[in-house]
Amino acid sequence: MTESASALDARAYDLDRAHVFHSWSAQAALKPLVIAGGKGSRVWDHSGRTYLDFSSQMVNTNIGHQHPKVVEAIKRQADTLTTIAPATANLARGEAAERITDVAPVGFNKVFFTNAGADAVENAIRMARLHTGRDKVLSTYRSYHGNTGAAIVATGDPRRFSNEYARGHVHFFGPYLYRTEFWATTPEQEAERALHHLRRVIEAEGPDSIAAILVETVPGTVGVLMPPPGYLPGVRALADEFGIVLILDEVMAGFGRTGEWLALDAYDVVPDLITFAKGSNSGYVPAGGVIISDPVAATFDDRVFPGGLTYSGHPLAMASIVATIEAMNEEGIVDNAATIGSDHIAPGLAALAEKHSVVGEVRGTGVFWALELVADRETREPLPAETMAKVKSELVARNLIPFTAGNRIHVVPPCIITPDEVAEAMSIYDDVLGSL
Amino acid sequence: MTESASALDARAYDLDRAHVFHSWSAQAALKPLVIAGGKGSRVWDHSGRTYLDFSSQMVNTNIGHQHPKVVEAIKRQADTLTTIAPATANLARGEAAERITDVAPVGFNKVFFTNAGADAVENAIRMARLHTGRDKVLSTYRSYHGNTGAAIVATGDPRRFSNEYARGHVHFFGPYLYRTEFWATTPEQEAERALHHLRRVIEAEGPDSIAAILVETVPGTVGVLMPPPGYLPGVRALADEFGIVLILDEVMAGFGRTGEWLALDAYDVVPDLITFAKGSNSGYVPAGGVIISDPVAATFDDRVFPGGLTYSGHPLAMASIVATIEAMNEEGIVDNAATIGSDHIAPGLAALAEKHSVVGEVRGTGVFWALELVADRETREPLPAETMAKVKSELVARNLIPFTAGNRIHVVPPCIITPDEVAEAMSIYDDVLGSL
Repeated sequence: MTESASALDARAYDLDRAHVFHSWSAQAALKPLVIAGGKGSRVWDHSGRTYLDFSSQMVNTNIGHQHPKVVEAIKRQADTLTTIAPATANLARGEAAERITDVAPVGFNKVFFTNAGADAVENAIRMARLHTGRDKVLSTYRSYHGNTGAAIVATGDPRRFSNEYARGHVHFFGPYLYRTEFWATTPEQEAERALHHLRRVIEAEGPDSIAAILVETVPGTVGVLMPPPGYLPGVRALADEFGIVLILDEVMAGFGRTGEWLALDAYDVVPDLITFAKGSNSGYVPAGGVIISDPVAATFDDRVFPGGLTYSGHPLAMASIVATIEAMNEEGIVDNAATIGSDHIAPGLAALAEKHSVVGEVRGTGVFWALELVADRETREPLPAETMAKVKSELVARNLIPFTAGNRIHVVPPCIITPDEVAEAMSIYDDVLGSL
Repeated sequence: MTESASALDARAYDLDRAHVFHSWSAQAALKPLVIAGGKGSRVWDHSGRTYLDFSSQMVNTNIGHQHPKVVEAIKRQADTLTTIAPATANLARGEAAERITDVAPVGFNKVFFTNAGADAVENAIRMARLHTGRDKVLSTYRSYHGNTGAAIVATGDPRRFSNEYARGHVHFFGPYLYRTEFWATTPEQEAERALHHLRRVIEAEGPDSIAAILVETVPGTVGVLMPPPGYLPGVRALADEFGIVLILDEVMAGFGRTGEWLALDAYDVVPDLITFAKGSNSGYVPAGGVIISDPVAATFDDRVFPGGLTYSGHPLAMASIVATIEAMNEEGIVDNAATIGSDHIAPGLAALAEKHSVVGEVRGTGVFWALELVADRETREPLPAETMAKVKSELVARNLIPFTAGNRIHVVPPCIITPDEVAEAMSIYDDVLGSL
């Protein structure tokens, strides 16, 4: 019964190709990497080929792979009670909710748990609509909020096109100085003009029809678009002026990614609802949710909240959230993300930009960075898709798992990444960018 | 550090009330039961109060609570690799997909994994729309397909009302002889007239605009509505006649619930897409998916499938699916569901109906039954909500966890339920029905 390592790799690959239907892909030409195990910032196949993970998979393994404390907590909960209906009270669930509200701003005391980020957004929208009695949801064109029916239409990026199954969603442009929509030349001007644009959209759509403004605190998959100073407080002020609920989507940006517990901590903004998933338990068990401010929660004290799901507050997921937040606290993992970002990733990427003219812009914070690659620094013309495919395959050939999106490399390692591992990755990026 | 059992119960309760936002509820008046552990068909709180679970929680713990083989598989996978991106190949994922296609009809060879049932339905709809190039989705008024944006609008029952965020969904009436929409008097007539009605809706909506007919093989939460003979083959024939994709939703009915591997096995019908979740791993880890027939899968060989999610094919979930299907095979759990249904639950419920005039109808199969409770057997007027609330609380007071919906008790224990446990439950139901 002992199967050789290479036979295991072959079997994993063959079973995948025979039976697994993949996300966001044409199926025939796929050649997926086999991954059998991992630890910290590395993963490997059965035969022992090891990769440095600078993707955190789907930007979710903030605590790294196979953190022993979280694995232990999952196993302990598995021995006790794997699953129980949401209508019950369960200690792991209560403790997870308490830990999450501890991380949130003052005045956020309740958590609605979901399976992941998409249904977190779905439920935040539902809460906002019922709380305000209004219908429309404003979100940015450059955004990703999940792939279920309402969530995908709240999404701005092209994954929306084939999925517009819902109504009442309006898209506006957010700030993005490098490719400004507002003819701005400074971050201050970009913020000011983006806020003017948002005000005009609100006025033109009718303020009384707008339930929510939904934005990623730092838009992630669309390019790690750091909000310029003043933008998010300005959005908050507009929401207040017109009685609109502000939902900050922290699914990707939250739980250490930016070097803060929540990305919003750096931006002097308090929303009404916060969505989370990925980093809250590093995806060790599928989980997500909505952190609810007291006034929105109070709306549903005596009124039925018409939403739910079978695995809301799943005990295995809850145990993994409790252990993840504890480990991140005990080991200073959020601080590490901040320091590694400012002291190692930032200078490393600046050096790459200095050396390689293909780098159009570097932006980010913590372990949340984008290298924008361009065919021409003057025109900022994005590097074409074929070249990006080559970048990706060359990085993998050098045993680095990259996260690429559009014309960008996102530099998004786990929050536990070390200076040596950053240096190793920078050398690989350097090598591949030099080969272009 | 040792906390007394009653203190643990109090803490679980208090944390829940302070921080957990519950599904489908007004929050203020909730008094959730504390559940700390379970085994087989029973769950208990910290203090040792034990309940007989005739709900299977959300009708998902088909294999019972804490099956040792599945718990072991989760722990083993947790030690190896808890999570990995969907774009990779992973042995647990390939094996889970293979096991699931083994359970499906011939010609179903690919599986797209999701987090639960709602996103399974979302993705089946997406596949049907892209495969046909058409837009509309027909589903029944009496149905439940999940709570995300498109899925909830595909839903027919009242949970849809506050959630109509999507477009192109059309609802029709399915067969339900006890409360016929078609003035039918026999099952054959109900089937024939329901098919005529569906044909008329297709013709009136325009066959060329209809991508999919989406139906639960046995509509579950809406009342365990057993399809009359000939109905599902007739739906298949209509789908074929008009080039419409047939999606059978097996989220609740599948994986042993009806005493078959899939509910469709009893109905001489082969759909184009099958959605699953709950019973596939008894919900030990959140998971669901779409089983895809070869022609629909082929549509996406060279064309991008525009859907995806972070935790698609999550290794912990996959390991639990493999172990669940193996244990169900080894221990004859599906056969047990069939036998216990025909030899114990059916006669037990028939005896209750004989004795208590409040029982209007008994219907079901396997471990999937509904007792329809009525104020008057002649008029079939449903028992009012206040009385149903009393039924529910009286059952709980006798240490049975019931599943109630509308004016019905759903008798939905795990598939591993024993004759003694059925007898125990029947005695409790008898007692409570007698007290009305």
